[in-house]
Amino acid sequence: MRQETIILNEARNVTLTVYLQEVNGEFLFSKRPGMLVLPGGGYAMCSDREADPVALAYMKAGYQTFVLRYSTGAHKTWPNPLEDYEQAMELIESRAEEWGLDASRISAVGFSAGGHLCACAATIAKHKPAAGIRVYPAILKDICDMCQPGMPQPNEHVTAETCPCFLVACRDDRTVDIKNTLMMQLALADKGISFESHIYSYGGHGFSTAEDWILTNSVSSRVPHWVGDSIVWLQELQGTLTKDGFTEPTVEISMNADSAPVLSVACSLNHICRQSNEARAVLKPMFDGMQAVANARGYSMEGLMAAVGNNTLRELMEMVQVDADTIREIDKALHSMVNQIG
Amino acid sequence: MRQETIILNEARNVTLTVYLQEVNGEFLFSKRPGMLVLPGGGYAMCSDREADPVALAYMKAGYQTFVLRYSTGAHKTWPNPLEDYEQAMELIESRAEEWGLDASRISAVGFSAGGHLCACAATIAKHKPAAGIRVYPAILKDICDMCQPGMPQPNEHVTAETCPCFLVACRDDRTVDIKNTLMMQLALADKGISFESHIYSYGGHGFSTAEDWILTNSVSSRVPHWVGDSIVWLQELQGTLTKDGFTEPTVEISMNADSAPVLSVACSLNHICRQSNEARAVLKPMFDGMQAVANARGYSMEGLMAAVGNNTLRELMEMVQVDADTIREIDKALHSMVNQIG
Amino acid sequence: MRQETIILNEARNVTLTVYLQEVNGEFLFSKRPGMLVLPGGGYAMCSDREADPVALAYMKAGYQTFVLRYSTGAHKTWPNPLEDYEQAMELIESRAEEWGLDASRISAVGFSAGGHLCACAATIAKHKPAAGIRVYPAILKDICDMCQPGMPQPNEHVTAETCPCFLVACRDDRTVDIKNTLMMQLALADKGISFESHIYSYGGHGFSTAEDWILTNSVSSRVPHWVGDSIVWLQELQGTLTKDGFTEPTVEISMNADSAPVLSVACSLNHICRQSNEARAVLKPMFDGMQAVANARGYSMEGLMAAVGNNTLRELMEMVQVDADTIREIDKALHSMVNQIG
Amino acid sequence: MRQETIILNEARNVTLTVYLQEVNGEFLFSKRPGMLVLPGGGYAMCSDREADPVALAYMKAGYQTFVLRYSTGAHKTWPNPLEDYEQAMELIESRAEEWGLDASRISAVGFSAGGHLCACAATIAKHKPAAGIRVYPAILKDICDMCQPGMPQPNEHVTAETCPCFLVACRDDRTVDIKNTLMMQLALADKGISFESHIYSYGGHGFSTAEDWILTNSVSSRVPHWVGDSIVWLQELQGTLTKDGFTEPTVEISMNADSAPVLSVACSLNHICRQSNEARAVLKPMFDGMQAVANARGYSMEGLMAAVGNNTLRELMEMVQVDADTIREIDKALHSMVNQIG
Repeated sequence: MRQETIILNEARNVTLTVYLQEVNGEFLFSKRPGMLVLPGGGYAMCSDREADPVALAYMKAGYQTFVLRYSTGAHKTWPNPLEDYEQAMELIESRAEEWGLDASRISAVGFSAGGHLCACAATIAKHKPAAGIRVYPAILKDICDMCQPGMPQPNEHVTAETCPCFLVACRDDRTVDIKNTLMMQLALADKGISFESHIYSYGGHGFSTAEDWILTNSVSSRVPHWVGDSIVWLQELQGTLTKDGFTEPTVEISMNADSAPVLSVACSLNHICRQSNEARAVLKPMFDGMQAVANARGYSMEGLMAAVGNNTLRELMEMVQVDADTIREIDKALHSMVNQIG
Repeated sequence: MRQETIILNEARNVTLTVYLQEVNGEFLFSKRPGMLVLPGGGYAMCSDREADPVALAYMKAGYQTFVLRYSTGAHKTWPNPLEDYEQAMELIESRAEEWGLDASRISAVGFSAGGHLCACAATIAKHKPAAGIRVYPAILKDICDMCQPGMPQPNEHVTAETCPCFLVACRDDRTVDIKNTLMMQLALADKGISFESHIYSYGGHGFSTAEDWILTNSVSSRVPHWVGDSIVWLQELQGTLTKDGFTEPTVEISMNADSAPVLSVACSLNHICRQSNEARAVLKPMFDGMQAVANARGYSMEGLMAAVGNNTLRELMEMVQVDADTIREIDKALHSMVNQIG
Repeated sequence: MRQETIILNEARNVTLTVYLQEVNGEFLFSKRPGMLVLPGGGYAMCSDREADPVALAYMKAGYQTFVLRYSTGAHKTWPNPLEDYEQAMELIESRAEEWGLDASRISAVGFSAGGHLCACAATIAKHKPAAGIRVYPAILKDICDMCQPGMPQPNEHVTAETCPCFLVACRDDRTVDIKNTLMMQLALADKGISFESHIYSYGGHGFSTAEDWILTNSVSSRVPHWVGDSIVWLQELQGTLTKDGFTEPTVEISMNADSAPVLSVACSLNHICRQSNEARAVLKPMFDGMQAVANARGYSMEGLMAAVGNNTLRELMEMVQVDADTIREIDKALHSMVNQIG
Repeated sequence: MRQETIILNEARNVTLTVYLQEVNGEFLFSKRPGMLVLPGGGYAMCSDREADPVALAYMKAGYQTFVLRYSTGAHKTWPNPLEDYEQAMELIESRAEEWGLDASRISAVGFSAGGHLCACAATIAKHKPAAGIRVYPAILKDICDMCQPGMPQPNEHVTAETCPCFLVACRDDRTVDIKNTLMMQLALADKGISFESHIYSYGGHGFSTAEDWILTNSVSSRVPHWVGDSIVWLQELQGTLTKDGFTEPTVEISMNADSAPVLSVACSLNHICRQSNEARAVLKPMFDGMQAVANARGYSMEGLMAAVGNNTLRELMEMVQVDADTIREIDKALHSMVNQIG
């Protein structure tokens, strides 16, 4: 393991601390996933409690990690912090190979004000993270204006380009109201962005990784789970790092598969019915299965299709017992067809 | 263990199946907590997949459990299902002693349409459960109207009397859109009701307890956690059953402590500052501690109080190192004072 | 779910309580795994604390469960309890189909004196369980003689026919000394029987499933993990029950593969080197890989083979990067060859 | 976080890599617990796979960590590695204050050959660790002689001075036979040393922390649990680090309380009955409770005492419902009395 602190902007006191683990040698892979940590502190400071302890949690899980101490206090004027983020990501991406890092798997995790910065990174930045984890993030106007009037409210900037997000907060947070997280969820749901969210019963604000030695108040026993849960969530999105490199992802970004450039079994039945005959032709095993179900239960085929039209092809094929190999072949065939209705 | 099925309404085919565990004897306590299970099935049927397997999960955790098969199909006309619920709860409460049950700790768990019924129970029923767990619940007009036009949308009926709630769903649910759960969260947050919510990345609809033998599609690895998490959440709300009876709850229903009939350390500083001098007097150790902090860091006392005014007394006292015994005494003293501004 | 108590022996007050869950219908499989519960109580009684709560834990995991209240007190004279066990297993096996039970997957779990009975079942019974779970079991002469002089010490009866075992105890057990479990481990290791063992730092005797409501003394926080761990261990041995039936087991009973009737990739290199040329021929990809390693690191091929001779073929092939499909083919080929040196 | 590599012995290529986390400042405590990592490698090398990844796991949990690369290869002649260990511990202890480290809470974790070294540290070293964690350790003559003839077998050197131990291995380990771990357990049990042990069904040798990216073969799903389990075990032994410093330990080292210098409620009834009248006098609440039980069930007091004589006073008092405050007072009183029969 080695460590280095790089000054990104001396005038604004912006630094990037880099923690690198070995690749190759006894480890057979040459690239690890990366995690950029954005501590909180109300844009007045960058809290140590949300810096190294967070980096350590992802390092233990195999990540190359980076702590960005962005512009705060006298230098916090927007968009300074976002520019710091862009500069950090540009640097990290440019040195990915040297640093044993997979440039396509660099995510970010932010807390409170750092959660606001992370949400801006996920929505309006040029260098978006592969995935964004936000813990008790500031999102809405009231709290943002307390830090610095005029900052963007990231829930208003969610688009189809926003990266997958993982949200964490406690219901009884009195520093950043829980509605900040709730409104972000709604914006992500509206645009069909893949997300996961855990709102715990109690624990207030500022629990960081919720290790016993970091906590300053009592928290629900589930709160410390978010760290491990976020790591497994990333594995589902990006594959798991093993001695042989990354495995295949298991998540399908299913809610917006209907607007992806090519078709897949993650598309809905309704969507496929609006595609070419060619597309419908590869689905014969599924329609046969559905017909069998319709016959067995005395449904009309039309009625059945209407009732399940929002389901994905995968769900429907599993339901009618199409075997896994056939599903894989159908998915492959669909991937070669352009999505004709966006 | 013993089991009995009671016919609640023969004409509508409504039954309550009762699963009772021993009390007294080798178990030193005489009352267990209770859980009423409300299976899903679109008000067309009550699914077996969301009946006994759910009852078993809570029985393992020590609960007396009850499965209500409410009015469905031809009998589903609202408010039939809610009347069935009321009748079941009335019966359960009336036989609590005979059944080794703590009448003040009877909760409900519902799935899909049963989640709609559970949400109605939590908001508009006469016999509210102590706590309500809702898994991929139907809440909004679109989905409710598909089951039966004219049913209430429970998110519109949340009040200060609504019981604490635990919400579970998957982001990619295509049967009941995730917004059903999101809008319920918002309604609970608006009224300051204690809740917890887990929205998992993927898993669709109908996973029930997510045991391997129940699943019909692939789910995020976190999905099965909801069962155990809900049990610990209930312990935080209601205390943990031990050989000596129930321990003290650890959750404070802090967001609406400001509107509770008496004061407590779960009230906010802002709220207490609007109370009597007597109330402020018992807080001397806290104000002394805050003054010391203000002096040490060169803040004005007014500025400090403005910055942390939404925090609870407990949080502030812990922050300024008031010892645990003193906090307990202050809480006791506050409990004897009427809340003068509702 | 339905429940029935069958009198096995009226004179000796022996009963079998049967708890059955549904199969078929909404559950697509027709057979569940089974678990026979043998409560403890020093052969003086059968404790309720180790009866239904244990049955519930395995029912939640999908099992058909059975509680045997065997001969105790005036009727405890050995081999009465073992005869009760044989009678119960015979009955269960004979009614497996009627009870929705896979007759090849009936395991047993015993506590204290019931752990002794379970260990006798695993070693000397005619109807051995598929797997045996023993929690703070009585094994050695001292403690067995206190219950009833002349009972067998099951660690002395372990043979190659003994079923896989899962052992649980606390280091500070003052009722049944921890050496009972340690000596059982040694006997299983001696015969190459597949086992798993968890000895927790503290928790004494009699914690059963270690649910909060069952405990009578404080226990290490890991103690409650044994229940879930035993269930996953059984899945590794027997496959996991899913909607489509049981998956393939993942454990290889590798330590005694060298004495199995046919060869496999779970055999050791040393063992295979004593087999036919035909067997060695299918291993060419492995020997090629090992030769490459030897060349690369300047080892002699003989030296390398001596150093890793106790390793299994699978381990060695994975080490030299033979691909998974080739390993599977080699395993298949070896399975068709008789093991010539037992 | 900062990092430094100290050369302990240039001729033998021995180094200590030091990883230090912050104390004071935003963290309110000034001392962290420490963990010394002893990698494996058959005394031929020190494996990177068992070095930094292990240090990271304990750093995440709040520890100051140290990786010792001890004498191997040409320099492995015993007692060189043990001397390296002693030198490292002496250095760490001497700089504890400077390094923000609690000198009374420095533990060691060793793997394979490093597990042998860790077991020697726990038994025959001058600077014993506070606790020793050993993962697939080499203990017995066969395997030790393969590394270097003439090394000590640590199971033969366990005494009352040996520190608490945590043992981890897989049943199917073909590199270091599972009996190495089993014989160590027996030696610890013989001397009444506090220990915990987890033997997993399968996973072979060399799995280190069992993170996905470290594994080279398939392992039982429980194997990765050992890391977190060892951390909680250490908390039970040493207290948990919180913002206010360490909490009280919760383990009682009960099996050898009978040979401790002073009495306590962790002593057995039999042992106390051989002490002074003064000691017996403070136990009046317990004897009263036992008498009540004897009366209620028609036992003789002598018979009851004989049956439970090996139990601890704490267990007996809890059994007869002596309240927690009284138990605490009795424990305090006993602590002031010298243990008269060692």
